[in-house]
Amino acid sequence: MSVLIVGSTALDSIKTPKAENPRLLGGSASHAAVAASFFGPVKLVGVVGKDFPKRYLRLYQRHRIDLEGLQILPGKTFHWSGEYELNMNHRRTLLTELGVFETFTPALPEGHRNSPYVLLANIAPALQHHVLDQMRRPRFVAADTMDLWLNIALQDLLKLLKRLDAFVLNDSEAHQLTMEDNVFAALRKIHKLGPKYVIIKKGSHGSILSGPKGYFICPAYPLHKVVDPTGAGDAFVGALMGHLATARGPVDDAIRRAMIYGSVVAAFCCEGFGLTRITRITRADIDERVKELERLTKF
Amino acid sequence: MSVLIVGSTALDSIKTPKAENPRLLGGSASHAAVAASFFGPVKLVGVVGKDFPKRYLRLYQRHRIDLEGLQILPGKTFHWSGEYELNMNHRRTLLTELGVFETFTPALPEGHRNSPYVLLANIAPALQHHVLDQMRRPRFVAADTMDLWLNIALQDLLKLLKRLDAFVLNDSEAHQLTMEDNVFAALRKIHKLGPKYVIIKKGSHGSILSGPKGYFICPAYPLHKVVDPTGAGDAFVGALMGHLATARGPVDDAIRRAMIYGSVVAAFCCEGFGLTRITRITRADIDERVKELERLTKF
Repeated sequence: MSVLIVGSTALDSIKTPKAENPRLLGGSASHAAVAASFFGPVKLVGVVGKDFPKRYLRLYQRHRIDLEGLQILPGKTFHWSGEYELNMNHRRTLLTELGVFETFTPALPEGHRNSPYVLLANIAPALQHHVLDQMRRPRFVAADTMDLWLNIALQDLLKLLKRLDAFVLNDSEAHQLTMEDNVFAALRKIHKLGPKYVIIKKGSHGSILSGPKGYFICPAYPLHKVVDPTGAGDAFVGALMGHLATARGPVDDAIRRAMIYGSVVAAFCCEGFGLTRITRITRADIDERVKELERLTKF
Repeated sequence: MSVLIVGSTALDSIKTPKAENPRLLGGSASHAAVAASFFGPVKLVGVVGKDFPKRYLRLYQRHRIDLEGLQILPGKTFHWSGEYELNMNHRRTLLTELGVFETFTPALPEGHRNSPYVLLANIAPALQHHVLDQMRRPRFVAADTMDLWLNIALQDLLKLLKRLDAFVLNDSEAHQLTMEDNVFAALRKIHKLGPKYVIIKKGSHGSILSGPKGYFICPAYPLHKVVDPTGAGDAFVGALMGHLATARGPVDDAIRRAMIYGSVVAAFCCEGFGLTRITRITRADIDERVKELERLTKF
């Protein structure tokens, strides 16, 4: 079944201690949609300006991503620029030009409103609400977020949590939201805010799911080198939702394996700047690393 | 088969934001020996002063720990005092009184020299060498260390690495030793220093083994609350060696499960001050949590 993905579609200029890459295809929805595309049909909802490079539209199309919901408006595409420190664990934003994103209102094409799986990738909670308002009883809704929304749109986010099946956030955001250092104590508190499934991402330390069947400790795929972690969290949740949408049986059983796929695709994402690595892999490459993770965790 | 454990035997005064506990039984060898005792016979080698409380000798004895190698000398027992910060991730040493430990030379009783499994728990590398000098061809030798020895006894430690089967250290020590932030890159570099098996402990994020059969990603047992993490790393390696000494078949196959046992016993250690929690559990409690970890990691 198809996954509807709403989020940001942007141009990312990324500096690391070793390289500088201007105007890569980026944004939460771009990373999530390409990651999800390895598993089944994806519908992308977002906005870009007239300056958006044609080659990036072709990139989406090569991944068979439905672009009916991608608005192309007069003005400039959202441009983000950031710089990573030597250890790649900290980044600082150098520049944010919202462009057409500033007044973006996601309007879903009629055919998108019945999508069974909905991923509200990182974007303002008000826009995530607006998308849900247009949906007809989706089967499974997941949302990601970022520290910015905890700072400036907490009330919107708290209302959103009551409308979700799954909420995905990273460990520092979980700490910010709950004031709990302990990830398991934080998971308990977040459940009380609404979501049945809560997933905390811990970067190279993997991720933790809390759901009706208890916890799942999901490993990260071992990488000897991280080239650019931008979008890895988006790729994780994109692949997770893509895999979940194609899985048979109850979500409780399928979601663990979906997280493993998320972990593997996120690792591929880290191996190149922007989407460069992830757009050069095949489903077989992903399956191979999933098998490897099985071997690396068996005891 | 029995495990010989050499390390510090101390009195620990531990402050956390919530409580203060003076003169608990502590030291790397105490934690490791009690942890190992759940799996098979343990021989402890260490030193204490005449002030060492009799109740702590009885505690060792209740765990059937062989004390023939424990020297009781005129003078004071090694006393360490430390304070944890609110999030329990950082601690600072308030006081170190070496006492009889200052001139400690581990002398192995004749019957100890044939021990097949040797754990050189955290102690000065020169003393770890001195123990190995007295051994007759042990089957498997593992050593732990701490940042102090990387700072003041690096050459001794580097020589020791060539005499080990397994080297166990935490992630910040691995970074200090190799200047690699990436744990897998660090593992590669540490192998080149000698050990066939290298294990990096990552606290609540679990641990990673690198050995001839590749990596093993070992989860931490989920805890909602950490009361006192002192000795958790010692308990991890103690239980690991205790389990390994009783396992059948090649080390390559047994070591993964041994790490899982280490992970579970380390978690019990964190649930109470000093050894208070770990001395109140049974082998059945441990086995139950190992089964739980199996469920929590299956996909």
